[in-house]
Amino acid sequence: MSDVKVLTGPEVAAHSSRDSCWIIVHGKVYDVTDFLDEHPGGSKIILKYAGKDATEAYEPIHPPDAITTNLPVQKHLGAIDITTVAKVVKEVTDEEKHRQALLDARPPLDNVINLHDFEIVAKGVLPEKAWAYYSSASDDEITIRENRLAYQRVWFRPRILRDVSSVDWSTTILGQKSSLPVYISATALGKLGHPDGELCLTRAAANHGVIQMIATLASCSFDDIVNAAAPGQNFFLQLYVNRDREITRKYVQHAEARGVKGLFITVDAPQLGRREKDMRMKHVGDDAGAEVQKGQSDVKKDQGVARAISSFIDPSLSWKDIPWFRSITKMPIILKGIATAEDAILAYEAGVQGIVLSNHGGRQLDTARSGIEVLLEVTAALRLRGYLPDPKFEIYVDGGVRRASDVLKAIALGAKAVGVGRPFLYAFCSYGQAGVEKAIQIFREEFEMNMRLLGARTLDELVPEMVDATALTQHTVLSPQDNLYHAAYQPLAFAKFKESRL
Amino acid sequence: MSDVKVLTGPEVAAHSSRDSCWIIVHGKVYDVTDFLDEHPGGSKIILKYAGKDATEAYEPIHPPDAITTNLPVQKHLGAIDITTVAKVVKEVTDEEKHRQALLDARPPLDNVINLHDFEIVAKGVLPEKAWAYYSSASDDEITIRENRLAYQRVWFRPRILRDVSSVDWSTTILGQKSSLPVYISATALGKLGHPDGELCLTRAAANHGVIQMIATLASCSFDDIVNAAAPGQNFFLQLYVNRDREITRKYVQHAEARGVKGLFITVDAPQLGRREKDMRMKHVGDDAGAEVQKGQSDVKKDQGVARAISSFIDPSLSWKDIPWFRSITKMPIILKGIATAEDAILAYEAGVQGIVLSNHGGRQLDTARSGIEVLLEVTAALRLRGYLPDPKFEIYVDGGVRRASDVLKAIALGAKAVGVGRPFLYAFCSYGQAGVEKAIQIFREEFEMNMRLLGARTLDELVPEMVDATALTQHTVLSPQDNLYHAAYQPLAFAKFKESRL
Amino acid sequence: MSDVKVLTGPEVAAHSSRDSCWIIVHGKVYDVTDFLDEHPGGSKIILKYAGKDATEAYEPIHPPDAITTNLPVQKHLGAIDITTVAKVVKEVTDEEKHRQALLDARPPLDNVINLHDFEIVAKGVLPEKAWAYYSSASDDEITIRENRLAYQRVWFRPRILRDVSSVDWSTTILGQKSSLPVYISATALGKLGHPDGELCLTRAAANHGVIQMIATLASCSFDDIVNAAAPGQNFFLQLYVNRDREITRKYVQHAEARGVKGLFITVDAPQLGRREKDMRMKHVGDDAGAEVQKGQSDVKKDQGVARAISSFIDPSLSWKDIPWFRSITKMPIILKGIATAEDAILAYEAGVQGIVLSNHGGRQLDTARSGIEVLLEVTAALRLRGYLPDPKFEIYVDGGVRRASDVLKAIALGAKAVGVGRPFLYAFCSYGQAGVEKAIQIFREEFEMNMRLLGARTLDELVPEMVDATALTQHTVLSPQDNLYHAAYQPLAFAKFKESRL
Amino acid sequence: MSDVKVLTGPEVAAHSSRDSCWIIVHGKVYDVTDFLDEHPGGSKIILKYAGKDATEAYEPIHPPDAITTNLPVQKHLGAIDITTVAKVVKEVTDEEKHRQALLDARPPLDNVINLHDFEIVAKGVLPEKAWAYYSSASDDEITIRENRLAYQRVWFRPRILRDVSSVDWSTTILGQKSSLPVYISATALGKLGHPDGELCLTRAAANHGVIQMIATLASCSFDDIVNAAAPGQNFFLQLYVNRDREITRKYVQHAEARGVKGLFITVDAPQLGRREKDMRMKHVGDDAGAEVQKGQSDVKKDQGVARAISSFIDPSLSWKDIPWFRSITKMPIILKGIATAEDAILAYEAGVQGIVLSNHGGRQLDTARSGIEVLLEVTAALRLRGYLPDPKFEIYVDGGVRRASDVLKAIALGAKAVGVGRPFLYAFCSYGQAGVEKAIQIFREEFEMNMRLLGARTLDELVPEMVDATALTQHTVLSPQDNLYHAAYQPLAFAKFKESRL
Repeated sequence: MSDVKVLTGPEVAAHSSRDSCWIIVHGKVYDVTDFLDEHPGGSKIILKYAGKDATEAYEPIHPPDAITTNLPVQKHLGAIDITTVAKVVKEVTDEEKHRQALLDARPPLDNVINLHDFEIVAKGVLPEKAWAYYSSASDDEITIRENRLAYQRVWFRPRILRDVSSVDWSTTILGQKSSLPVYISATALGKLGHPDGELCLTRAAANHGVIQMIATLASCSFDDIVNAAAPGQNFFLQLYVNRDREITRKYVQHAEARGVKGLFITVDAPQLGRREKDMRMKHVGDDAGAEVQKGQSDVKKDQGVARAISSFIDPSLSWKDIPWFRSITKMPIILKGIATAEDAILAYEAGVQGIVLSNHGGRQLDTARSGIEVLLEVTAALRLRGYLPDPKFEIYVDGGVRRASDVLKAIALGAKAVGVGRPFLYAFCSYGQAGVEKAIQIFREEFEMNMRLLGARTLDELVPEMVDATALTQHTVLSPQDNLYHAAYQPLAFAKFKESRL
Repeated sequence: MSDVKVLTGPEVAAHSSRDSCWIIVHGKVYDVTDFLDEHPGGSKIILKYAGKDATEAYEPIHPPDAITTNLPVQKHLGAIDITTVAKVVKEVTDEEKHRQALLDARPPLDNVINLHDFEIVAKGVLPEKAWAYYSSASDDEITIRENRLAYQRVWFRPRILRDVSSVDWSTTILGQKSSLPVYISATALGKLGHPDGELCLTRAAANHGVIQMIATLASCSFDDIVNAAAPGQNFFLQLYVNRDREITRKYVQHAEARGVKGLFITVDAPQLGRREKDMRMKHVGDDAGAEVQKGQSDVKKDQGVARAISSFIDPSLSWKDIPWFRSITKMPIILKGIATAEDAILAYEAGVQGIVLSNHGGRQLDTARSGIEVLLEVTAALRLRGYLPDPKFEIYVDGGVRRASDVLKAIALGAKAVGVGRPFLYAFCSYGQAGVEKAIQIFREEFEMNMRLLGARTLDELVPEMVDATALTQHTVLSPQDNLYHAAYQPLAFAKFKESRL
Repeated sequence: MSDVKVLTGPEVAAHSSRDSCWIIVHGKVYDVTDFLDEHPGGSKIILKYAGKDATEAYEPIHPPDAITTNLPVQKHLGAIDITTVAKVVKEVTDEEKHRQALLDARPPLDNVINLHDFEIVAKGVLPEKAWAYYSSASDDEITIRENRLAYQRVWFRPRILRDVSSVDWSTTILGQKSSLPVYISATALGKLGHPDGELCLTRAAANHGVIQMIATLASCSFDDIVNAAAPGQNFFLQLYVNRDREITRKYVQHAEARGVKGLFITVDAPQLGRREKDMRMKHVGDDAGAEVQKGQSDVKKDQGVARAISSFIDPSLSWKDIPWFRSITKMPIILKGIATAEDAILAYEAGVQGIVLSNHGGRQLDTARSGIEVLLEVTAALRLRGYLPDPKFEIYVDGGVRRASDVLKAIALGAKAVGVGRPFLYAFCSYGQAGVEKAIQIFREEFEMNMRLLGARTLDELVPEMVDATALTQHTVLSPQDNLYHAAYQPLAFAKFKESRL
Repeated sequence: MSDVKVLTGPEVAAHSSRDSCWIIVHGKVYDVTDFLDEHPGGSKIILKYAGKDATEAYEPIHPPDAITTNLPVQKHLGAIDITTVAKVVKEVTDEEKHRQALLDARPPLDNVINLHDFEIVAKGVLPEKAWAYYSSASDDEITIRENRLAYQRVWFRPRILRDVSSVDWSTTILGQKSSLPVYISATALGKLGHPDGELCLTRAAANHGVIQMIATLASCSFDDIVNAAAPGQNFFLQLYVNRDREITRKYVQHAEARGVKGLFITVDAPQLGRREKDMRMKHVGDDAGAEVQKGQSDVKKDQGVARAISSFIDPSLSWKDIPWFRSITKMPIILKGIATAEDAILAYEAGVQGIVLSNHGGRQLDTARSGIEVLLEVTAALRLRGYLPDPKFEIYVDGGVRRASDVLKAIALGAKAVGVGRPFLYAFCSYGQAGVEKAIQIFREEFEMNMRLLGARTLDELVPEMVDATALTQHTVLSPQDNLYHAAYQPLAFAKFKESRL
């Protein structure tokens, strides 16, 4: 890496074709000619930057070390003398202008009073592609919505006349203190939505004693995030297991060395789901003609951001791998993505320290059930076998949380804490670090209010009897409507104001 | 209080800053400089009236004695010579003009044929802030709507061929005669919606033999209301318990001395809920910039009217306080806000005279269940223990009632009477006292009709077998829809009129 | 009645005030001065015709003999020489012109392919008041709609590979042949919708072997209807029992004498329901000011057509009256309006020949259950007691039927036949007698189709196992929606057509 | 057939009236004068082509041999010298122009990412009549929609940490290899939607190892389809049984001789259903006046395409016919259209090789249940009797499938394979053969994804425990809404963007 050659803009610009394609990323020049056909995002997008600086396009959607990891060292051609590179005058599209106007017109943060508000602001201010990537889920997006709706099927049974002068919603997660029974769950590619990416989470978490789970696919590098930590700040690590276990081993051991407190292995994503909103994005403006594909599809063509960035994930991961993880780290191991009582039992018996009942934010198998629903059968099955209560085995839930009341329902039903992903993501996409802090503050106010009104002074007082979850396992779909009848029916009207006087 | 000093407008006007802030309220001058930072509604709103007459803004949203109670006597500076105060020319906003036009165009009261009509009229004619305060409920407003919908889940099983020439729906509540099995439940700040405030209720109740529950947070003072009573007119008192029990003691004993017939202690509001419609109101037009709040929130800033006026409520209130209440009054004690069978049992065993199954009109804990649903488990549990029937213990229900048929359902399921709040409130906001009388008349007509059609000649004949309540405990949430399929489906059409001939 | 005096137009016109008010109806002159305050529809509407010919307004909304029955003989002043009456030039309103245009533009009857079509046409071509009267139901109109929806909760279990070359859906009702397992149920005031009124039904029924139930409140007189019968045509009689039993006795015995085959006594209407669409009609254009009603309401003012015409009905009717009916007629007696198993048992034990499970088309007690749902509990309870099967006791159902498949479901569940009211009414309002014939033809086609597809060759083969009625007793109301979440969610989109090429 | 006479255009043109009506079809001249009144589609449509070439109108809606089969040989007048026929200048309607524009603007096939997309494209590009015929279902179209919605009531219980590096979704159907657990189900009249008709299916099926079921009512003749087969390509035959069994015998034996691998006898269509969208089509523009039909309806007039083409189907078909089928063919016999456990048992006992749980795509008996729901009771009943498992008896399901996940649910619940009809039809109507191939490719991608995410490596690993089907038998219909309440309720709003800055 020493003795770096320095190249000039014109030298690079000479290699701007499929036959010889150089690009500049973060001040380095790379020869990607042979890599064009292997690029998970397709060759076309690279060729657009052939002979040019691709950093701006590269950054938000690649893990920081993607290019150095994937490209043989001999293709790392050297540094660029950036003063010699022709500045690209970026033209600002109408869409982009509108987005900037919306950014200016964001509601004052004071006016944000619930987590939904962040989503609406984010929808307005995010680039279309980022919104599609973040908000999308698999197939018909049944499960992502079910995650939210499942909480609507749990009702409170609040107790009265308890002295609730002071209420306390702090807890520990894997033995680490947390000011909320909530951790920041991993979400990918944060720089698509904010230039500081996941660092917005890190800084806000530091100020409020909340634990952040670092994503394998974060836009910010693992070290950038950990370097930004406040003293004593805790992290968890979310792990996609690489086909090349050696890469995974190094990654995990590095995280442990840097003080990460828990390893959350994603087990519900042997392959990333088909997310149609994300897939549609690739087609916008891409009117390449209606020629018909024959035979095998070109996987790289129309799979959206999600699948382009995830080809390294190993679909062969299995229960047999758990001892190996045990052998490479002392961190607590948590399996993220358990969806049945059967697998919760296997997990417990495999000796892991916890499980996350999750469907990956609805982004993987559609019509899988919500974590909060699965929680019912999991706690019942583990209790039946005498595996619970066990202070060394924690159960988390994620997906669909928008209110502190949702969290309290999960805890009443046996969860130790709840993972929250998109709401924090939308918070920083809308307002940066300040948005995340506001989100935490909203949680705090809601926890105080709801615990008082529930008659629970500590999280321990949240018992199953405080909720009515009988509707939780019900999945109601309406019979098709008798449209003719309904169209013919004329609804009742109110008394009318006198229009003549208006 | 004798030997009152008289001040002039210019003298007061000289104290119009944060450093020295005097205001005029109801003809008295107060020095509120030191109180600015303690004002639950924030200092800004007071400073708007610094050196001026604040009566008009003060009146509808403060209990009448708020200022004298909260401000030390030495800050009561004296009387004002009102002739020396510069008249403020109030500018009439477009919104206000529109509201006045709607007031003029109200439907004739004859055209109001159900309680919903009052709500629609009130929505049109109320100032936005009043509507927000009255109509709002907590969080996602699930519970306020559930209160209504729960009644839709109870169906009638009417009996036929009984001689229903005459039917009688009068009853007693806590031993007091009532022409309806309905009492007027407490609602706060009536002057926000009508200059006569709660007196509209008092006068109408007098004319129709209905019992009014006086709210702690009424705009009219307790004595103003009781003074307006007709001979023999009965009241109940709704009580928010003050952190300062002495204030509560005096208030309760004064009420008893004035002949109030029942003490309804609110037990579901250790803190008032987050009501977002109310909170949003504070932000309208308040474009103070998007600076980010750091650390602890400024509670006074964005909490809406509800929380601003309720900071005195004691969150430590507990079962241990019941004997104390017993010791200070002979009035029957009723706990308002019971939400589970467990607490109904505790209440019965604590020796109170009744309970109100209520969720505070949906304004406190969201996703709490409706009173009518809780009634099922409460009567079952009390009967199981042999506590019911007991003529000395009455069960009431409130929330969501819009029809006499709702009341009859509650009575069939074991309620003694039903509390009705917002509908009467909307009635007087729309038409004053006459509106309330009309509402009572509508109830009367509906009671006559429904009892005849049910085959129940007296309320005693309303037995559980007259309703089918099997759906009452069901909470149905639809699975997310397959939007693509539904969007593609083309509904059937009717035979078409020949457009060419139209 | 002999020796009738003949009056002239000018003579009558002289009595055009509240002090002396004469009107002409059907060529006779009446002094209604003393009757003004007793008129169920209020005095105002009569005074509009004081001194004039009121026939056109009178006819559609009064039973033909209303005036002669209610007015003492001495107020029957004589005949009018119609040539001497000034012709009233009726002004045609814009609304009426629009209605006439719609009449011209009706879809050709060939294009009507289901019963819903008639409703849509009727909605277009009926005068607003008629539509309001016919289509209205009580309170929130829950029950009228539930009547339809209940059928949607019954699903078929069709059998295959039976030889269905010929299928037969004829039956007998009370021993009388009927070409369909359907009778025309009583509906009132047919002339509001068609000048021939109920005769449209009579003539169509004759042509198709269907039985018509004659309504007490028909616009056409009983005798007009029976006189229009074809040889051998059968009728039933619907009876509202009069406070004056003598009137009822005569009416029933006259019907029996004229050959009516069954007496259907309405038992669910001791008082007619509050039908708000009908009540609102009275207020349209009636901007009499917003003065507030004090004390007792003016019942005659705002009760709609329904209640104006029904004040004679006796609310004291009870089980004790059944033997009396038995004593005055040999016709089979059927109780129309049974709504519980309890009353079905009482009816059976009272020795009547049948019952109609009905809620009066949703026009009486709102949130009463549908007939088809009640059928389940009724047949179960009667079978349990060994009362069924009994060839001398028939069970009918009415309300909500729009398809032959609905009828077949009712029959599979134990009904002998089904009453159909509004669809036939809308059929003749839209197309006169031809519409009713078309409706019968549609039924016939649907019966043939559905019986073949069900594998039932005769009605006897329709067994309970052919339907899945497990959902029938379920009453599902949705929990209130999380509106913020739903508003924020962005539904999936389809692949887009290329707009640039369109 | 030898020695064919050749006629000229003017000779034919001379026979252009009801009295003598000749038409040209596929280069042959026919005298259809006597056939006019027997034509199932009515005489009017034939007379439109009297004396002319009717081929273009005839082709898409008739089985290829319809005219030769139905017309006596002596009415086959000979060949036409096509050069002598006056060319008809077809005028292009605005609607047709719009349709052509939509065809040009179709989304590129690359942009089609799910089966719903084909439906939307087809809706745009199909002639109205074809869309009506294909998309219509019977009565209120409850069942066609229920078919889709039933799948929404089955949820997945996915298993994790299984090595899913490779997954395999191939299977056998009746012993024949199939690359998917899906066969192309029979749909009729393919040329209405694409000039190549069902050949699009044949060619695509050949390329992808999928089995096509040939429809009795295909637009392409049986032999045209089989002649287009690739070597080794397999077919099934869908059979409507003719009143003339000899025709059926020849048809079946011919199919067997040509190598068809399974005979699917349709048993749910003794008569084709009333499909209102299809029926309405006949009326568009047919403003023949509103004369009223008297007595019996003219069946040929308003029955839509479906019934016009199906009059030959024998409604007497019964269990007694099964041995006869057994006697005429060695092909496996499958009964298509089983809807109850009772008939599944009879089918098994009758010795057939399989059953299709189907409701004919919702086109026959409305409010019949979905195949996937019936599957539950069928497998339970067959297992109870020890009939299952039986490798010689296969169960299929069809109706409502739009995703591979639907198929996997059916297989988990006991189906061997699933029939898919309309989606493939819409695929070729939109994009021809290429569309069908794309549809198969989408299935393939979805199968791979979903099997991995389910943790099932082969179809054998799809066990009932992988789905939660508890909601499948539920049929939920909403109680009628309290419209006044819902109309009065004002939903929560989000924080507002500052409009002044936009």
